[in-house]
Amino acid sequence: MTEYEALTSRLKEVKVKIDSDGVALVTLDRPVGRNAWTLYTQDELIKVYTALEEDERVKVIVYTGGDNKNNIFCAGADLSMGDFSSESSGTKLTEREHRDGGGRFVTFVHNRVRKVTIAAINGHASGVGITQTLSMDIRLAWRDAKIVFPFVRRGIVPEATSSYLLPKLIGNSRALQIFLTGNVFKASDSIYNGLFFYEQPEKREDVLPRALALAREIATQTSAVSCYFAKSLVWHPADSIEGQHLLDSRAMFVLGDGKDSREGVKSFMEKRAPKFAATVNRDLPDWVPWWNHVDLSVPNKSKL
Amino acid sequence: MTEYEALTSRLKEVKVKIDSDGVALVTLDRPVGRNAWTLYTQDELIKVYTALEEDERVKVIVYTGGDNKNNIFCAGADLSMGDFSSESSGTKLTEREHRDGGGRFVTFVHNRVRKVTIAAINGHASGVGITQTLSMDIRLAWRDAKIVFPFVRRGIVPEATSSYLLPKLIGNSRALQIFLTGNVFKASDSIYNGLFFYEQPEKREDVLPRALALAREIATQTSAVSCYFAKSLVWHPADSIEGQHLLDSRAMFVLGDGKDSREGVKSFMEKRAPKFAATVNRDLPDWVPWWNHVDLSVPNKSKL
Amino acid sequence: MTEYEALTSRLKEVKVKIDSDGVALVTLDRPVGRNAWTLYTQDELIKVYTALEEDERVKVIVYTGGDNKNNIFCAGADLSMGDFSSESSGTKLTEREHRDGGGRFVTFVHNRVRKVTIAAINGHASGVGITQTLSMDIRLAWRDAKIVFPFVRRGIVPEATSSYLLPKLIGNSRALQIFLTGNVFKASDSIYNGLFFYEQPEKREDVLPRALALAREIATQTSAVSCYFAKSLVWHPADSIEGQHLLDSRAMFVLGDGKDSREGVKSFMEKRAPKFAATVNRDLPDWVPWWNHVDLSVPNKSKL
Repeated sequence: MTEYEALTSRLKEVKVKIDSDGVALVTLDRPVGRNAWTLYTQDELIKVYTALEEDERVKVIVYTGGDNKNNIFCAGADLSMGDFSSESSGTKLTEREHRDGGGRFVTFVHNRVRKVTIAAINGHASGVGITQTLSMDIRLAWRDAKIVFPFVRRGIVPEATSSYLLPKLIGNSRALQIFLTGNVFKASDSIYNGLFFYEQPEKREDVLPRALALAREIATQTSAVSCYFAKSLVWHPADSIEGQHLLDSRAMFVLGDGKDSREGVKSFMEKRAPKFAATVNRDLPDWVPWWNHVDLSVPNKSKL
Repeated sequence: MTEYEALTSRLKEVKVKIDSDGVALVTLDRPVGRNAWTLYTQDELIKVYTALEEDERVKVIVYTGGDNKNNIFCAGADLSMGDFSSESSGTKLTEREHRDGGGRFVTFVHNRVRKVTIAAINGHASGVGITQTLSMDIRLAWRDAKIVFPFVRRGIVPEATSSYLLPKLIGNSRALQIFLTGNVFKASDSIYNGLFFYEQPEKREDVLPRALALAREIATQTSAVSCYFAKSLVWHPADSIEGQHLLDSRAMFVLGDGKDSREGVKSFMEKRAPKFAATVNRDLPDWVPWWNHVDLSVPNKSKL
Repeated sequence: MTEYEALTSRLKEVKVKIDSDGVALVTLDRPVGRNAWTLYTQDELIKVYTALEEDERVKVIVYTGGDNKNNIFCAGADLSMGDFSSESSGTKLTEREHRDGGGRFVTFVHNRVRKVTIAAINGHASGVGITQTLSMDIRLAWRDAKIVFPFVRRGIVPEATSSYLLPKLIGNSRALQIFLTGNVFKASDSIYNGLFFYEQPEKREDVLPRALALAREIATQTSAVSCYFAKSLVWHPADSIEGQHLLDSRAMFVLGDGKDSREGVKSFMEKRAPKFAATVNRDLPDWVPWWNHVDLSVPNKSKL
């Protein structure tokens, strides 16, 4: 039994395995519940991503929905367990102490996961079913997947920091159309233009293989440290172009003297595949991250 | 005579009526002037939107252009009344005291109007004719409407905060192409991709009915308080993803215990239409807005 | 011999000429090196753009790639001169003193060039071959140009402030897909949607003539001062919509009393082409720029 099989054996809703190329596959697997999120899903996902983040072998994490009879990636919050009231959740927390569950996972992936993350959206997704993927780096979706941000139709707000991420991902105009109508659109509809990877498989069953192939390509053809810098420079830019110039100049200097850069240029000149060795677990300069990670836990109350 | 007919009877350029679903229709109506903006238009529009904002019955505001013989939504500033010089406007204000007229309306809608706002662009629009719609939530346009941001061809600058809004709506690359060419493009041209609602009626006369149907759908199927939070979270995000997580967590907690959330979940489980009751006039928590409204009036000079 | 022929005669890699409409044409011309960038390219480009910026006759600058046998606009960094290590570059600078070469040019164009800038991408572009164009106002590309941001496949980071500019140009979602795959895409592929001008010539040889025609249209039909304000308002907006309202109101007041505005309105009313006379070299108010230009030079070491 691998470490991940052992981890999975303690988990109820999530499975994980890792291949020899450094690609981890995380599966949300609640077939009876149409892969809907429960109060435990966020905790299990954070546990799994923490383990993958700490595992030096892992370069890319693919996240997908387990098989179910409804072509569903994730049906959103499991409303069979109650509505969104504090009564339903049985919480003792106050208004200021409450931390949205989807947001806990999404900000964790955004802030703490340095590996490349890919969502393989192999079915319909609603609410947290889609917002949970917005801090992942690439979303590869079945072209007929029905995607809905239904919050205004439920009397709540766009959660999981989707109101922060979606505008930055595709602009305020489309984000407002999506949020304020709360309508169902297909992944291939123009309203989502740019949100999903340019390749959108016609068949649901082709989504995961395509995502895994993309993951393997990234794991084997790119430098993990380069990818980490690239995504961090995009999400945590300097306040000005001059600041970014100082930042990427410093990164270029450090990486230019690193082993991956020499191999990257050498393999390119020799017209062969590169063999990158640097990892984000061992080979980052001590000045990253260059932004602050704000502690969002509630003293003595951060556990579920 | 309704309150709005009374209001309209005092207005010269704008009409307003309100239906039983909570949808208000505001019409810019200057048929002889091709719906061009005058010095009075901004004041009348602000008066009308102030009344609609204060009216608890109103959930969605649709804005359109009145009938004229030229298929025009709004021809822009009425140049028959003079050019852009201080001499023409007869102003006694200084360079620092001047407040751009389009900008007064656009920032008012952006800052003060908590209802959902939809522009029904049922004809050609130029200059302030189009920029006046950029702080509205959704722009539904006739696909053949000729849309032009002609400022660099008139020797002035993009006004009405369009240089702030357009880049956030559709990104800097398209905004620069639009602003620096000053060319005429159709609403359906790729350069405007994402700026207008994904549905673009082929016939001019179908725009207003479609916009009213969308407005009624939003007014009857969504929570007004949810919509207000959604648009506010998009336009006034926190400085970081952690800040947004705190913000939307607090909003989720408050709304999760609100009447609209219970009804939203209940109606969804019962597969029936929701009956939302909360309004932005009565049911907002006291910590909104969470951003500052800067006072832009000029002491003793703010009246036209 | 014109001033620019004289300048060109001292340059090795760049050519420049200027026409009677105020359009300057800058050509990167290293036919044997597939127009790849060397250590000297950045310096020569900055010299040329400095001269054009100071020349009152110049309104628009078009940048293109010289003829070569490989349909290449710019092949990126010239790796035949070494890899990205400090050893290869022979630098004595430290990690904090190093300034990325592409970034020096890109930030110079962004901060110091007040004329309209157009990239005529008449061939394939890789790495700095494409990132050097991101601070230009408009990119007009051959539809079959192969465009690649290959940084993660070389073990380095997206340079030349591309991680700052690309997300603002087309949004974070597409920027991440582009940066993290490092794949080759054509200019016409949907992943680049919005990055390039909406017109994409089918034939490589049509790109430069089309770019020059666009440049001449801008040079003759628009106000140079208006264009400068437009692009500056987009790239250097205020922190809030109210701040932008104050900023564009002041600009409207000043330009409304300027000669270009009177001519812009007059020519429009008379249905004739305008004759704009104001230049960014002579006719800007003393309160621009309204943002700070940060000095990025390294004391005593800023020369190559």
